[in-house]
Amino acid sequence: MFKVHMHRRQFSVALATGLVGSVFPWRLRQGTLRVNGDRLNERLTDLARYGRTPDGGISRVAYSQADLDARLFVSGLLRDAGMNVSVDLAGNLLGHRVGLEPDLLPLVIGSHIDSVPDGGNYDGQVGSMGAVEVARTLHDASLDLRHPLTVVIFQNEEGGKTGSRAWSGEVEQRELGIVTASGKTIGEGIRFLGGDPDRFDDAAKEPGSFAGYLELHIEQGAILDQRSIDIGVVEGIVGIKRWNVVVTGMANHAGTTPMSDRRDAMVGAGSFITAVNRIARRLPGRQVATVGWLEAFPGAPNVIPGEVRLSLEIRDLTMESIDQVYEAIRVETRVIEQQTETTFTFDQFYVSRAAPTDERFRALVDQSAKALNLSTLHMPSGAGHDAQSIALLCPVGMVFVPSVNGVSHSPEEFTRPEDITNGANVLLGTLLQLDEALN
Amino acid sequence: MFKVHMHRRQFSVALATGLVGSVFPWRLRQGTLRVNGDRLNERLTDLARYGRTPDGGISRVAYSQADLDARLFVSGLLRDAGMNVSVDLAGNLLGHRVGLEPDLLPLVIGSHIDSVPDGGNYDGQVGSMGAVEVARTLHDASLDLRHPLTVVIFQNEEGGKTGSRAWSGEVEQRELGIVTASGKTIGEGIRFLGGDPDRFDDAAKEPGSFAGYLELHIEQGAILDQRSIDIGVVEGIVGIKRWNVVVTGMANHAGTTPMSDRRDAMVGAGSFITAVNRIARRLPGRQVATVGWLEAFPGAPNVIPGEVRLSLEIRDLTMESIDQVYEAIRVETRVIEQQTETTFTFDQFYVSRAAPTDERFRALVDQSAKALNLSTLHMPSGAGHDAQSIALLCPVGMVFVPSVNGVSHSPEEFTRPEDITNGANVLLGTLLQLDEALN
Repeated sequence: MFKVHMHRRQFSVALATGLVGSVFPWRLRQGTLRVNGDRLNERLTDLARYGRTPDGGISRVAYSQADLDARLFVSGLLRDAGMNVSVDLAGNLLGHRVGLEPDLLPLVIGSHIDSVPDGGNYDGQVGSMGAVEVARTLHDASLDLRHPLTVVIFQNEEGGKTGSRAWSGEVEQRELGIVTASGKTIGEGIRFLGGDPDRFDDAAKEPGSFAGYLELHIEQGAILDQRSIDIGVVEGIVGIKRWNVVVTGMANHAGTTPMSDRRDAMVGAGSFITAVNRIARRLPGRQVATVGWLEAFPGAPNVIPGEVRLSLEIRDLTMESIDQVYEAIRVETRVIEQQTETTFTFDQFYVSRAAPTDERFRALVDQSAKALNLSTLHMPSGAGHDAQSIALLCPVGMVFVPSVNGVSHSPEEFTRPEDITNGANVLLGTLLQLDEALN
Repeated sequence: MFKVHMHRRQFSVALATGLVGSVFPWRLRQGTLRVNGDRLNERLTDLARYGRTPDGGISRVAYSQADLDARLFVSGLLRDAGMNVSVDLAGNLLGHRVGLEPDLLPLVIGSHIDSVPDGGNYDGQVGSMGAVEVARTLHDASLDLRHPLTVVIFQNEEGGKTGSRAWSGEVEQRELGIVTASGKTIGEGIRFLGGDPDRFDDAAKEPGSFAGYLELHIEQGAILDQRSIDIGVVEGIVGIKRWNVVVTGMANHAGTTPMSDRRDAMVGAGSFITAVNRIARRLPGRQVATVGWLEAFPGAPNVIPGEVRLSLEIRDLTMESIDQVYEAIRVETRVIEQQTETTFTFDQFYVSRAAPTDERFRALVDQSAKALNLSTLHMPSGAGHDAQSIALLCPVGMVFVPSVNGVSHSPEEFTRPEDITNGANVLLGTLLQLDEALN
């Protein structure tokens, strides 16, 4: 069998000089080049040492010593992959590899390695080490891409996506003063990781700075696991809107107030909860709506609640469809107000912009998975990711691998080694196809 | 016009000796004898000095100095009414008046004068001072009853009906150690008021110790006020059962869990709340059912609640009908469990026995009110009262007067002076009729 990297190099040169029109040799190479799954899973085990907790999980919160130590460990792996390593002004860890065509924009792959307190060993880490392994595989195969390649380990994903939002210019100055779980402010943390909070704004990138961004991540949900599907082709990262809802009735004695004289805020809230659930299920699409928190006042078994406060959250792939679900809920709420003689107010307190993935990226992820005989499902990402901010700068794609039982942000978080290897191979295959397809 | 009290005495003697069969003169006397409304309302104003708060309410919690001072004040009023005053072993304040027929059991009227912290000037106090005024009116008119008359000011109604429950033998020994809002234990408080906690059990009465017990009270609800009705004829004091209800679903990520995969304990709870309300309204009768408290776990806007804890309270005039409402709720809950894929558990943690009033008492209260051209409504008492325990010992009756806007346990508690006078006149009229009717 001919040497893949030799062929690749020859072919790329040929392509650059306009001599070759057929893509046949690419397809052949995609069918043969694989990451080293054993090495990848071993590196994940190595990474799990940094911030390990007694129950087998990790507390590697951003800006902690464990976070810095882990980043130094990953820096070594990036160098082993032949990359030039740097830390940018925002404190993100970067590995760079030149491309064959100097005029092309970089392709970026990566994720994050910081965790929530008492988190698990897979969230962010699978995508980060998967990207490192892809770079190492290219290096070992001496296979050069047309595009420059950047591996990025974003900082403080769990505490507010600071690193990726720095690239998209979304971090506000005041955020640098926020005290994080590490005990340091974000500003202090950036300096701790090797960035410069005083020149933070210079970390921002112009839209169009990259050819594309591709992120491998665990699903953090149970859909793939329950349906025994290998690869999730992410349609986009859902937008989120949250409201504080106040239901006002009239507090009264639960013994002396007949049912017909009641203006029971809890009954209004109960009707609202069931209406939210019914509307989210009934409307076409895959929107989700949740009432996760509720408090009744005064909150005693023998007093009719005069006020109930609750949270409403709606997520969907576009902000327009979130607004449609919200409008349907508001229409239904007006009926509930009349039926229960209560009044509702809605105060929106949180918005996270929806970030659709690029249609071409989705098609190539799907194609790469199928070339590996892996089953795929096109699905939204209900959780937020760094890709969300990077979508402001360039087309993005995401690859999901199954989370066993959908558990995440917990020491019980688990993704099978073979699924991790599959995900990294899809990352590699998609990257190679993107390298071919994008200019 | 002949002197009422002379006639009464002559008539009673005649009745005792079997010489008189007609009741005509009684009716005549009932139509003319009235309490002194001005004096009654002035005494209520005097009483309001004890424990007065800056906002015009009172904090006269049981066993406080204000409570003791107020009881000494009332003792003086009882003496002014010609009564023998004593404090029983349970610390209840008593005024005694002999009857014409020594073999008859006493008729008892009264209520309580202790308040909740930051309470108002009417709850318990209207019935207490109304009873004192009735005794004073009889005394001023030199009108002797056939039965002995006892005016009772029960102790610690608000903190657990200790005084009246002592009579019915329901107070458990351990309760004497409970620390009350006064800072004293119930045992210390009993001693403070002149009772003897070491001989507390001897305060209990045998069933059949009294001919009857009649209590005037403010409604503590808005029914009479809203409907502009003068007098509530109490059908009984409702029984109460309370449950802690736990709804169990599965906590999950509110973004990554599709609607169809959810086992949302909040949705189960919402369906339950609306079902409780629907069932309580739909079933015949005047039962009330309330969910006054609710807590969701983990209780974050972005997490599907895995568990919801809430309170269920049902009140009705009989324990059987409470159980019927509960059974209907349980049947409906089984449907909710299936629909929402949640499970419910019910833990009953409180029972208060229903205490129906005596049918004859109700008829005489109604008759006495109508003889005074007062409108009446037969209604349950949704709140608990001392009469509840005394119902274990003898037939009981209760007279309600309107609470403006139904406000109670608050400095804003208010009952109009004319309604207080009406209530005392109905108490007087009913007492006189009971004295005639009962043996």
